[in-house]
Amino acid sequence: MVTSSPYLTERSVDIKWWIKQIKKDFEKKYLPVIQEYLKEPSISATGEGIQETAEMTAKFLANLGAANIQIVPTKGWPVVYGEILKDPKKPTVLFYSMYDVQPVESEKWIVPPFSAAIVEDFEGMGRSIVARGVINTKGPTMAFFQTLQTVINSGKDLPVNFVFVIEGEEELGSLHFPDFVNSYSEKLKQADLVYFPSFSESLNGHIKIVLGCRGIIYFKIWIQGGDWGGPRSRNIHSSLASFVDSPTWKLIDLISKMRASSGKILIPGIYEKVQPISEEDKQMINDLVKKLDLEEFKKMIDVNKLYSDENQKEMSKEQMIVKLFEPCLTVDGIISGYTDEKGSKTVLLSSAFSNMDIKLVPNMEVEDIRNKIRNFIMENAPEAKLEIEEGYKWAKMSPLNPYIKIHIETLRSTNKKIEIWPMGTGSAPFYIFQEKFGIPVLDGGLGHGSRAHSPNEFAFLKSKTGAGGIIDFEISVAKLLTKLGEVGKIKNDRFIQ
Amino acid sequence: MVTSSPYLTERSVDIKWWIKQIKKDFEKKYLPVIQEYLKEPSISATGEGIQETAEMTAKFLANLGAANIQIVPTKGWPVVYGEILKDPKKPTVLFYSMYDVQPVESEKWIVPPFSAAIVEDFEGMGRSIVARGVINTKGPTMAFFQTLQTVINSGKDLPVNFVFVIEGEEELGSLHFPDFVNSYSEKLKQADLVYFPSFSESLNGHIKIVLGCRGIIYFKIWIQGGDWGGPRSRNIHSSLASFVDSPTWKLIDLISKMRASSGKILIPGIYEKVQPISEEDKQMINDLVKKLDLEEFKKMIDVNKLYSDENQKEMSKEQMIVKLFEPCLTVDGIISGYTDEKGSKTVLLSSAFSNMDIKLVPNMEVEDIRNKIRNFIMENAPEAKLEIEEGYKWAKMSPLNPYIKIHIETLRSTNKKIEIWPMGTGSAPFYIFQEKFGIPVLDGGLGHGSRAHSPNEFAFLKSKTGAGGIIDFEISVAKLLTKLGEVGKIKNDRFIQ
Repeated sequence: MVTSSPYLTERSVDIKWWIKQIKKDFEKKYLPVIQEYLKEPSISATGEGIQETAEMTAKFLANLGAANIQIVPTKGWPVVYGEILKDPKKPTVLFYSMYDVQPVESEKWIVPPFSAAIVEDFEGMGRSIVARGVINTKGPTMAFFQTLQTVINSGKDLPVNFVFVIEGEEELGSLHFPDFVNSYSEKLKQADLVYFPSFSESLNGHIKIVLGCRGIIYFKIWIQGGDWGGPRSRNIHSSLASFVDSPTWKLIDLISKMRASSGKILIPGIYEKVQPISEEDKQMINDLVKKLDLEEFKKMIDVNKLYSDENQKEMSKEQMIVKLFEPCLTVDGIISGYTDEKGSKTVLLSSAFSNMDIKLVPNMEVEDIRNKIRNFIMENAPEAKLEIEEGYKWAKMSPLNPYIKIHIETLRSTNKKIEIWPMGTGSAPFYIFQEKFGIPVLDGGLGHGSRAHSPNEFAFLKSKTGAGGIIDFEISVAKLLTKLGEVGKIKNDRFIQ
Repeated sequence: MVTSSPYLTERSVDIKWWIKQIKKDFEKKYLPVIQEYLKEPSISATGEGIQETAEMTAKFLANLGAANIQIVPTKGWPVVYGEILKDPKKPTVLFYSMYDVQPVESEKWIVPPFSAAIVEDFEGMGRSIVARGVINTKGPTMAFFQTLQTVINSGKDLPVNFVFVIEGEEELGSLHFPDFVNSYSEKLKQADLVYFPSFSESLNGHIKIVLGCRGIIYFKIWIQGGDWGGPRSRNIHSSLASFVDSPTWKLIDLISKMRASSGKILIPGIYEKVQPISEEDKQMINDLVKKLDLEEFKKMIDVNKLYSDENQKEMSKEQMIVKLFEPCLTVDGIISGYTDEKGSKTVLLSSAFSNMDIKLVPNMEVEDIRNKIRNFIMENAPEAKLEIEEGYKWAKMSPLNPYIKIHIETLRSTNKKIEIWPMGTGSAPFYIFQEKFGIPVLDGGLGHGSRAHSPNEFAFLKSKTGAGGIIDFEISVAKLLTKLGEVGKIKNDRFIQ
């Protein structure tokens, strides 16, 4: 017996159709397209496949019926732009994502990283796609497009308007993205909120909603022999190290001076502007501590032990979350000299190099931190050559922001446990949307994957761990869009932290 | 008018013939053979060409009419053995050298390192051979053989007896050479002295006689994530570095703790057994300081400035020589993570590795230093994996040893300025001959080359700098052998320091 319920709105009928349709189309129609997108390498560090992937991304926007599609050149890699602006009364979502991925060199993968292979039982956890970019972020991007495709296929209008912005330099620190945003601000300012696609379930099926993201500054240090001492132009015999200074020791000593073994950064003034944790955030931390499964988290990130204090006591869940409100300095790479693990070569090296980064939290300022890094290095190793990338700021949303509340409520309706993280581990240039347009960033949906920047990056198709797969992400996006369409446009800018 | 001088002994007639013969044969007959020897790679670190070069070395010994030629297997690379023992009344020289060379990977050469190319005007300094091994030590070895060949060609008996020992692991720290010496001690103990061939002239034509050589211990340190913390098996996203410890930082901090920026080693107890400089050595240092041309030395080793103190004052000549009486710790290589100089990759690395060495001086003991390194690392980074090679001791000869005196006198007769270094920069396993047989090591002859372990290792054929070439080395060897033959066997063991 079919009855017309007062609660069964037109949209809630739609959502049922869409979910049915996604389930019907996913395996044969959608999954191969996700694989196709992942098979094209798009490594911004080297440029490999970047142009091809930008064009492929534009083509997918065209399939969605987007207007005004452009591959916008920047001083670096291009940004893919498009729009679906049909009804000014509907809220407009700025869909922000990236088509670039991290390099894979010297990583050990169980399948080629750009084969987008389906592994029937990946590490005993379930059916998965293993590929560079499958979670960060070509997988979620394509899955989001497929939800839109489903709506369109059902003959309905999309519940919201869209401007699409998919950049190609996120993994390089979004170097030229602010330039793009500035030139396209007339277009972008129409947006009421930003949506960034990601698979937000933990391995155990908790949904992780992240209200803050950290900024980042990359920098590179070279030390080369020269007027100060050290071998000028070539490696020399290490027997001379008794009276010739070493660029390698200089670099090691310099880096070592930057951080205490506790993780505290020793560059003077780095903590000066760091904001104390608010009462609202403390409350969120308390709630999160109750829900967080530390053992599951450690398993997911492949560590046996989190940071320990001098008494070898492992960091508590609370300490761990609090750390996300503090800056963090990382050596991403260091190299000098003969590094073969077999044999020996006694050389005094003429140069040494390191790749580093620092994560920024509220209220650190990029220019201030750049200056402090520069001053520290000039003071401690005036012979060093330093290159600091532009970098970008942190961003932070309030849980009271109405769009954020809708996002949380929609995900809560899946009956999964929700973990609200006041600050996330990752970095993304979300600050620019906050600063420029005063709008919040909604981040995530169902589904689980992990190992961003690592070998065997994977996303579930069907897990044994309680977490959802890509299909669940597509369904959760349909629900969110439906909900956003229902509540319509809301004035919300004062709720951003 | 030809007169028979009482000073013109039979041998002094011989030496004139030989010098004439060397000059006649060098360019067309000898030089191509030196090139042939250098063209065969013999990299002990990788094993490339090792067997072929051992066989080639044995073949050259056969050409000299050596008896009992053997390619003696060891647990590592083989030792080439041979003997010319014709007259028990003549002194016996233990000719010790090596046929192995250092790796060349990632070095920039102006000619392929195993092409043994003759460069007509190498860096404006004169006609040279540029090749890996041309000074260290296949060039001097082959040049020495050619002097013997000249004597043989002249129809005369060699002025001294020989046992030849040419090892294949010197560049790895002569790991299995002591085993060989032990098994062949019945043969080797017949020797009255050791000769090690090398081009001993500085760029400016001063002859450098080195009376001591330092011992060496190589070691390797790995730090890998595990039970202590850190990423267990793969690099993970650096955003996790806020609460996951880093093998890279651990390694950098550990290495940094090993040495002060002054060069002083901070591993406890390292200096405990270091012998104070003797009055005899102080006298030699004073003499050497007067002769040493620091600017020429710095040019030769490609540095603008020697170690400087905290006031940025450059090390004096005396400080420099004194440093050779102190141990020295070197980072030969370090690697971890993403080391591309372009682009960025934010990773928290699961492992970090370093190659290091320490030079030993009188009276440091290998086992004691190994223990101190091990204890320091266990104390400061119990999670590190440490591999320490066998290593070997320092050696030191007295300028009063009669064979050493003959060596000095013979070289002084060339009218070149003589620099006597009580301690040299380099390391060689000379201690074993001292300890086992109580005999001194004579090291060197005319000729200049440099850049051992570096790109564009070269030796002069004809220089513009005042230094001799390979042909001068061959002639100086002829003179030394003549002199040794004249003085005959001398009881000399009490003069070794």
